[in-house]
This record gives sequence, structure tokens and C-alpha cells, in this order.
Amino acid sequence: MKLKLIKGMRIVAATHNPGKVPEIEALLGGHYEVVTAGALNLPEPDETESTFAGNALLKARHAADRSGEVALADDSGLSVAALGGAPGIFSARWAGPDKDFAMAMGKVEERLEEVGSDDRRAWFSSALAVAWPDGPAVVVEGRVEGCLTFPPRGDRGFGYDPIFIPDGYEQTFGELDPKLKDSISHRARAFEKLKAALID
Amino acid sequence: MKLKLIKGMRIVAATHNPGKVPEIEALLGGHYEVVTAGALNLPEPDETESTFAGNALLKARHAADRSGEVALADDSGLSVAALGGAPGIFSARWAGPDKDFAMAMGKVEERLEEVGSDDRRAWFSSALAVAWPDGPAVVVEGRVEGCLTFPPRGDRGFGYDPIFIPDGYEQTFGELDPKLKDSISHRARAFEKLKAALID
Repeated sequence: MKLKLIKGMRIVAATHNPGKVPEIEALLGGHYEVVTAGALNLPEPDETESTFAGNALLKARHAADRSGEVALADDSGLSVAALGGAPGIFSARWAGPDKDFAMAMGKVEERLEEVGSDDRRAWFSSALAVAWPDGPAVVVEGRVEGCLTFPPRGDRGFGYDPIFIPDGYEQTFGELDPKLKDSISHRARAFEKLKAALID
Repeated sequence: MKLKLIKGMRIVAATHNPGKVPEIEALLGGHYEVVTAGALNLPEPDETESTFAGNALLKARHAADRSGEVALADDSGLSVAALGGAPGIFSARWAGPDKDFAMAMGKVEERLEEVGSDDRRAWFSSALAVAWPDGPAVVVEGRVEGCLTFPPRGDRGFGYDPIFIPDGYEQTFGELDPKLKDSISHRARAFEKLKAALID
């Protein structure tokens, strides 16, 4: 059992969103054929864990064991220091079924006012897990630290990007050049760690 | 970043039980110096995940990041088919602070009577995680399938061993020769997977 991703192999992405395929293929350096769990008609597991890493591992394990192929899963979100790490693993759920992140960002602002703290530190986390069917799994996590700003600024990116200013910059992830954002993001860092561990 | 355990290296075992050191050293083939998280005065994290693998990962990550060294953690337990997988991750907790497994085994029998099922299938699971500080983690899981018998039989082993008969045998884990048990157990299988993945 070699813990390596062999170039040319097929990888099952534990997602039902076909739009993620080109992004994942690019992040892996273009050497893999990515197929979604949705395209293979695999069910989606409940995300029952309390950490990004735990949920990524659970999703990758589920997809690998059901497909019999190597599977990759991710879980990511925004954690706010003054809110004890919330929304964290609930980042997507705060936006509701309509993925209304304007509402979700408003909720973050409201909660900060309730708490009455001036602490605006926050970080984005991205956990990635690769699982082999009936075999081991490898989990990595990338993080980018920054602080929050209100009202939201910029129409680039997605999710909570418009309220997040990464340390060392003055623009939000919603304003920064997407290429720059992609080079410093939590997701980029997680994929760098994953590639360093699993690709020769 | 090589995902390898280099012979001679020190490994932090995410446990506060010094009695586990010789066992872990032996399971790793005697090539590593094992020190416990307790000996390093590291705090114990809350086991907040819902799976064996998730809890092992959480404990290994916690110990690695706080010690700055490679850390190993395990999480294991008994799952009963007719009880929807219970006691599962709560296997130790069912025995209470006094580690009263006679009581815990009695609770399993009671619950089975309440459910009214004749299904006696059960399995032991053992998850192991190895984490590198600020780096990746590798997670494996071993399992042994069997069925339950009441009343408990045999005074070898520990925990729920006296009610568990592994498939292919007629004696319980509480009766079987410890060497035989150690060669077919969930724990042995997990360590075999771990060594195959991480040791050249």
C-alpha cells in the first residue's frame, strides 16, 4: 500500500456538485481524472463530525468504500475568534438552503454585536481527505488568518469572502485579484500540503 | 514531507495511561521510542467526534500540534448490529468511571432484550491516527466481525471480550489464547494497515 496518487489515475470527488470538477483537477495539477460521487450515484453521508478534518475524512471514507476507488473530500469554512470559532463547520448552513451568504454575513455581524467584543480576528480553514477503499486515509488542513470588516466589500469570490481581509493585505477576499486569492487561500494551502504528501 | 515513520524516532502516544507504552512499542515492531502525552503534561482533548476514526484523528492532531512531534492515537470499541452500532464510540463510557465492564456487558444484554431482536452480530473496531505537527495525518481502521453470547465467558482480555465470539471461532475473546486473539484482533489489523502504509 503506497500512499501515493499515481498520475493518470481516476479520483472520486465526494461532492454532488459537478461544477467542482475543473477546479479540483486544476488544484491537483491536471494529472488526474476527477469524477464526482454524484455522477456515480453514491449517496451523500451525514456530516456528523465536529471538525473540518473529521467531516472531510468521513466523506472521503464513505465515497472510497462505496465506489471501490480512491476518493477525495473537502470541508471548509470561516471561524470567528470572538464567536468561539462559529460559524465553523456550520458556515454553509448559516447561509440556508438558498445559499444566501449576504444573510449569513449579516448574522456574523449581529452575533459580534451581541457578544460586544472588538476582536475581529477570524480564519478560513480547509480540510482535505484522500481515502483508499478499505485502506488508509490522509488528512491535511490549510488555514489563512485575517480579520473581519463590515459592511461586505467586493463581488469576487464567494461565501464569506467579502467580509474577510487576510493578514498582510488591505482588501477583502471579495476584492482581491482571484489569482492572488487562489495563491494564498486556505484551500490553496491545503492542496499544497496534500500534493507534498501524496505526489512524487 | 515523507509520510513515513523513520526507525528510531520518538512518537508521542496520545494517552495518559503509561501502561500502554510497552504494548504500542511492541505493536510498532520495537523500532520506536514511545512517550505518552501524559508524561509530556499535554492536556487531554474532548473526544467530540461521532466516529472512531474521527476521535483518533482529533487526539493525534491535538498531541502532535502541542508537542511538536509525531503523535499516534487510537480509538476503539464494540458495535452491536441490533443496537444500531451502540455502544460504539461510547464503549468505554458505558463502563463508567470505575471501568465496570461487567455492568457494561449487562447493559448490552438488557438493551438487546428491550429491542427484542435475535440478531447477535457485532464487531470490534480500532482506529489509529498518526499526525505530523502542522502537517498531514494518516488514519486507518481495523475491524473484526463476530457475534455476542451471554452470559460472559472467560477471564482473559478486557472490556467486552467475554461476550464476543469472532467469526470462525467458538470461544470468546475472553477465552481465546491471548496470542491468537492478538493476531486476529481489530487492533492487530489496524496496526498491520498502519505499518504497511507508514513503515518501509
